[in-house]
Amino acid sequence: MQDKENILIIGAGLCGSLLALRLAQRGYQVTMYESRPDLRTTDISAGRSINLALSDRGLRAMKMVGIVDKVLPFCTPMYGRLIHDIQGNTFTSNYSGRDGEYINSISRGGLNGLLLTEAEKHDNVTIHFNKKCTSVDIENTTAKFKCYITKEKHEVCADLIFGADGAGSALRKSYYLEKKFLFSYSQNYLTHGYKELEIPADKIGNHQISKDHLHIWPRGQYMLIALPNLDGSFTVTLFLSYDEGAYNFNNLTTIEKVTEFFKTQFPDALDLIPDIDNEFFNNPTGALGTVKCAPWYYKGKTLLMGDAAHAIVPFYGQGMNASFEDVVVFDEILDQHQGDWETTFKAYQKIRKKDTDAIADLAIDNYYEMRDHVANPIFKEKRKIEMDLEKTFPNDYFSKYSMVTFNETINYATAMKIGRAQDKALLNLIADNELDTDANLKTVLHKVQQQTKEILQEDKVAGLQ
Amino acid sequence: MQDKENILIIGAGLCGSLLALRLAQRGYQVTMYESRPDLRTTDISAGRSINLALSDRGLRAMKMVGIVDKVLPFCTPMYGRLIHDIQGNTFTSNYSGRDGEYINSISRGGLNGLLLTEAEKHDNVTIHFNKKCTSVDIENTTAKFKCYITKEKHEVCADLIFGADGAGSALRKSYYLEKKFLFSYSQNYLTHGYKELEIPADKIGNHQISKDHLHIWPRGQYMLIALPNLDGSFTVTLFLSYDEGAYNFNNLTTIEKVTEFFKTQFPDALDLIPDIDNEFFNNPTGALGTVKCAPWYYKGKTLLMGDAAHAIVPFYGQGMNASFEDVVVFDEILDQHQGDWETTFKAYQKIRKKDTDAIADLAIDNYYEMRDHVANPIFKEKRKIEMDLEKTFPNDYFSKYSMVTFNETINYATAMKIGRAQDKALLNLIADNELDTDANLKTVLHKVQQQTKEILQEDKVAGLQ
Repeated sequence: MQDKENILIIGAGLCGSLLALRLAQRGYQVTMYESRPDLRTTDISAGRSINLALSDRGLRAMKMVGIVDKVLPFCTPMYGRLIHDIQGNTFTSNYSGRDGEYINSISRGGLNGLLLTEAEKHDNVTIHFNKKCTSVDIENTTAKFKCYITKEKHEVCADLIFGADGAGSALRKSYYLEKKFLFSYSQNYLTHGYKELEIPADKIGNHQISKDHLHIWPRGQYMLIALPNLDGSFTVTLFLSYDEGAYNFNNLTTIEKVTEFFKTQFPDALDLIPDIDNEFFNNPTGALGTVKCAPWYYKGKTLLMGDAAHAIVPFYGQGMNASFEDVVVFDEILDQHQGDWETTFKAYQKIRKKDTDAIADLAIDNYYEMRDHVANPIFKEKRKIEMDLEKTFPNDYFSKYSMVTFNETINYATAMKIGRAQDKALLNLIADNELDTDANLKTVLHKVQQQTKEILQEDKVAGLQ
Repeated sequence: MQDKENILIIGAGLCGSLLALRLAQRGYQVTMYESRPDLRTTDISAGRSINLALSDRGLRAMKMVGIVDKVLPFCTPMYGRLIHDIQGNTFTSNYSGRDGEYINSISRGGLNGLLLTEAEKHDNVTIHFNKKCTSVDIENTTAKFKCYITKEKHEVCADLIFGADGAGSALRKSYYLEKKFLFSYSQNYLTHGYKELEIPADKIGNHQISKDHLHIWPRGQYMLIALPNLDGSFTVTLFLSYDEGAYNFNNLTTIEKVTEFFKTQFPDALDLIPDIDNEFFNNPTGALGTVKCAPWYYKGKTLLMGDAAHAIVPFYGQGMNASFEDVVVFDEILDQHQGDWETTFKAYQKIRKKDTDAIADLAIDNYYEMRDHVANPIFKEKRKIEMDLEKTFPNDYFSKYSMVTFNETINYATAMKIGRAQDKALLNLIADNELDTDANLKTVLHKVQQQTKEILQEDKVAGLQ
């Protein structure tokens, strides 16, 4: 093997920082450039996904770099969804029938800061902030940067360049514009955007609603969700169409209209968001986009990772987990092909792309499910049966959600394929009144398994797999 | 209604020329700019899709503008596929069990020239050649052009701009780069590219193989097809991976290797392609890409049509037909909303996009079907049953291919939904030995219909429609 290469990482977000830490642990010389200021010393997150859900795939990555103990204190466990209907009634929908399976609300800033600090403990890591990558010469592995402080431009050359620079990746844009190869690329936006609001802590610093749940106010065309923070507050996110429906971002232009909207659609939430007028009009409206592309690499020179390679919508709570899992998968491939970067990159894409495509599609599915189905009787019945099956047969039954969220040994593509077939089996068995849940639950399990198998077989014969 | 607007059309290809003709018939002032020379006076087509398949959707457009009689002389009917196996055996696979349902091989240049000539008969049409559109200022409906002859640049302002400028559309690129709105966009390439070759006419100008068929040499990773021309020749297209498999475009670098490839894979075809060495190394290798995007329009100012809005791969023979159908659908919408362009554009996209998305997906499906399935026993059995059903029950049974190709009153999205379910039903009934084709064919029809209905219902319950 040759000497350890100089590696340039563009982007010091969650994926870039983790990658820097791991490559440093492996002994590479790592230089990382970030366009924003150091988030450990500057508040830069207002209104932009300040908390996220960390689950098993993400935790596996934390174990890989040995910092789980330092991450857990940032976590607030959420055991299920708490659905708020329009009358203010609530009902719960747990994430799993097994004990110990839950997702964690975590602050993006806190976790990112921890990763940066851990990476910087290594002498072979250097991090530069306020330096925006403007383009990459992929043939010569040279990146151009502009400094936001000095306004100066400069170039950095490295043996390898990793683009962990998020959904708006400069490396990916260079792939697209340089036209050195056939670059398959898609960016797809939902008709809805999002806006963050806040439910503050009560006067003594406690959460005003259950901190053990992810709260959802599903209203078809509109949806509100809330995730707990450690300080007793909740980060609330409104999902709303830009221009369709009775209320949308384009026509909510006055305080009166916004108040009317919340009063009619989310009356119980409105009471908890005191600063809604200020927040609604001053926090940015974010777009909800999915990005897929291929190839992720150019020769053995550059590689896209995380959101730069596969930005997804937030409805499965897997964006960060998928990006962290990228680093785990890449780390395993590196063991096999270390020293041959082109083979490493190729093998990584071959094993990983089908999975990131799958979680992108699953996240879109969940957008519709959360909006429309969580309050639907057949869906509720399905979730109830699944909870019973998971509780009674913890080693034999795994819902799609469980496979995706709590089973890091099942890849996303497999979880999607089996999970979708299983959902289809369950929904049709319920619709056809073929599941007698008062009878032996074992019979129910066998029926669902049998039907799932048949669905998979029929798809296979039809060439749909 | 206001006075008839000045309309600028970018691109005088098949879609642009038809659109110009139709808008001229409606009395608009039409100016059309084309980057290439006038194809009626210059030979510009070498190695680039010089013939295409015209079927019912395309013919409907020709009827709309009243030129069917002038188009038919350019057509060579193809009644089915003629499959060539590796031993040189052939078997037929008709396109329909009904009489009078066939597709037409037609010269791109001949048809395009006719459309240009018909458009130019109108005083309100002006066509400029050799003028390449470089960008469009969509807010001010102003397009920039560069003249390939004089090298001069100039701008053209119009009331409306239509981008019919093909898969590499300058208008679409301006949507992407101007970032005035959230632009969903995808370009996806297959792993295979294509190259055109020629089977010349025999010494007395006749076709050397059946001119009544589209010829296919399916070999899994490789595929050759041939379409008849009026002059007795065939245009042959080789579909081959860029870099995978034993033979690919990257490793076929010598005459010896190319000859070896054809001798082992397509021995009967090799005997018919005398100039293969010259053609293989001098004709360009084309990419096979699918483009989807949305929105197609900007306010009431600009609109993408044809390949510029939805480029598809050629495997369903529907690329030109879909673009022609765009103009038919647009023409109908124009009747409803004439004078209100934004409403017209919005209504057009709403009704049309699901259909162009569908034909894009169907064309990808057919890529795999043509490569892999046409020689597969279950697939052959399915086609045989479908031919029998169509012949015996011409008003009750329509294969997916028939719905897409011969039933212009069924839109592409519906044809895809029903056709896929029907294919799945048939393939599974055959695989499970549940179709006794020696028995009453009416029983077969009912079983297929019943099973198709069930599949559609199950998908609906599972939320998959």
